[in-house]
Amino acid sequence: MFKNTLIIGCGLIGSSLLRCVIKKNLSKNIFVFEKSKKNFKVIKKISPKVKFIKKIDKQIFRIDFIILATPMSQYQKIFSKIKKFLSKKAIITDVASTKENIEKLIKKNSNLEKSFISGHPIAGSEVSGPKFGNEKLFKNKWCIIIKNKNKKNQSKVMEFWRKVGSKIVIMNAKEHDNIFSITSHLPHLVAYNLIKTAVDFQKKNRKPIIKYSAGGLRDFSRTAASNEIMWRDIFFSNKKNIIKSIEIFIKNLNNFKKIIKNRRNKNLIKILKDSKKVRKQIINLKQDISKPNFGRDQF
Amino acid sequence: MFKNTLIIGCGLIGSSLLRCVIKKNLSKNIFVFEKSKKNFKVIKKISPKVKFIKKIDKQIFRIDFIILATPMSQYQKIFSKIKKFLSKKAIITDVASTKENIEKLIKKNSNLEKSFISGHPIAGSEVSGPKFGNEKLFKNKWCIIIKNKNKKNQSKVMEFWRKVGSKIVIMNAKEHDNIFSITSHLPHLVAYNLIKTAVDFQKKNRKPIIKYSAGGLRDFSRTAASNEIMWRDIFFSNKKNIIKSIEIFIKNLNNFKKIIKNRRNKNLIKILKDSKKVRKQIINLKQDISKPNFGRDQF
Repeated sequence: MFKNTLIIGCGLIGSSLLRCVIKKNLSKNIFVFEKSKKNFKVIKKISPKVKFIKKIDKQIFRIDFIILATPMSQYQKIFSKIKKFLSKKAIITDVASTKENIEKLIKKNSNLEKSFISGHPIAGSEVSGPKFGNEKLFKNKWCIIIKNKNKKNQSKVMEFWRKVGSKIVIMNAKEHDNIFSITSHLPHLVAYNLIKTAVDFQKKNRKPIIKYSAGGLRDFSRTAASNEIMWRDIFFSNKKNIIKSIEIFIKNLNNFKKIIKNRRNKNLIKILKDSKKVRKQIINLKQDISKPNFGRDQF
Repeated sequence: MFKNTLIIGCGLIGSSLLRCVIKKNLSKNIFVFEKSKKNFKVIKKISPKVKFIKKIDKQIFRIDFIILATPMSQYQKIFSKIKKFLSKKAIITDVASTKENIEKLIKKNSNLEKSFISGHPIAGSEVSGPKFGNEKLFKNKWCIIIKNKNKKNQSKVMEFWRKVGSKIVIMNAKEHDNIFSITSHLPHLVAYNLIKTAVDFQKKNRKPIIKYSAGGLRDFSRTAASNEIMWRDIFFSNKKNIIKSIEIFIKNLNNFKKIIKNRRNKNLIKILKDSKKVRKQIINLKQDISKPNFGRDQF
């Protein structure tokens, strides 16, 4: 599909794509640019085909496909380097979780505008690093492609994600950031906030409560163990939407409090029952499986 | 261990205890009082040893151990019936998630005070009903026993829970309700509130967002699929503590919002990193396993 593919940033997502490219033979040559030296060994083990690039310089000219999979806070630095050397025929895609900020960044680096087709695979985990990468990570998962004027490049990137196993949906950056502030950014923020609330309580009351977290807290702590650089970047980049979603969440929470305070039975039962219906939808939409969870270590 | 054990309410927890009693031979005879007719068949299949009791009347006199595993809103009705017929030597335990309200209830039914040793196994799932019950449900899980003046009965109930596989800890009702408002009730409430917020957003914006829930919302929807009667009872019974915990949570959330708004990098990174440490504690405390989650259907 490509002659020379370069993956910049080879962590969980980058290395999963690396595995896909090799397994499905999507590129004649595969190059990796990775800053963390401790990751080199793991990446080398993935395949002897991998070639490391130590510097982004004129050798970049021969690359025809770049996958950007670093934290977003690295993007500007990388854009300003690659734009000097990149061939006009080359295509760049990325995997970041927010898109309006990147659209603005690309406008600043305008000669990349036609080359850059932004993507967001809805896949991941609480763990980081290439050792956790997996070629099946994107299988049957959504990949959001951000609308681009260059339809030829857009089609090529869509073809790439399809070959990797993803289901494609096209959106504009604004719509993307709005939707994922609710389905992903708010849930993560709430999980972090829940853990902070529990820790604050434990300190204040001098009671060991974390040991009883099997009652619910446990599952949130998994979400709240996600990579801090990645999530710092997401929270800052999608600030506007996230603040709005926090405000709706607090409004609903205050309403929930009132319902409990005034023992409004009907209202409460409605919220709880409606939730169950959404759960069924999520299972029907194949976003989760119906198998019950009794704690991940059990039975 | 007992001669005649009666389980009142044979859903997920009741039927799991039923399976334990039979498997570990903890009672010569085992009786079940269950309101839902559609559960009869499933319960019968568990063992031919099970005998059904259709009415709580004088036949209760021969029972020496009662396990109460109905929703809490049924307790008063059941107490007022059993207190008429129960032998003074009999012991009652329960499995409910809040304890101060039950302590008050027992004071109203004062002739049960010495017989009743309240318990709370920290085990369960989002699913309900006897078909999901499992004899291993309580294995290595905490069971909270509420302090009682009758040490003899307390020891007997602790022995029962130990035989069922649980680790025991003794608390008073106040301490219990305080701790679990944070580690269990708040997480469930937050999960319900998150689903409600997503549904409100979907309605208002007319965008199908539930289909993208693999980005985080999915995991909360599982928690928010828990039994509505059980959770209505918990939210109402532990009102005071839950309202307080909502307020701390909102305070922290507003602080989180400010940190994002003002791009306070250091503060944000601290919250995210501290969260990761708590996750490690939770794994070390064996409240969860370290195996990463890429979505429960994957790999």
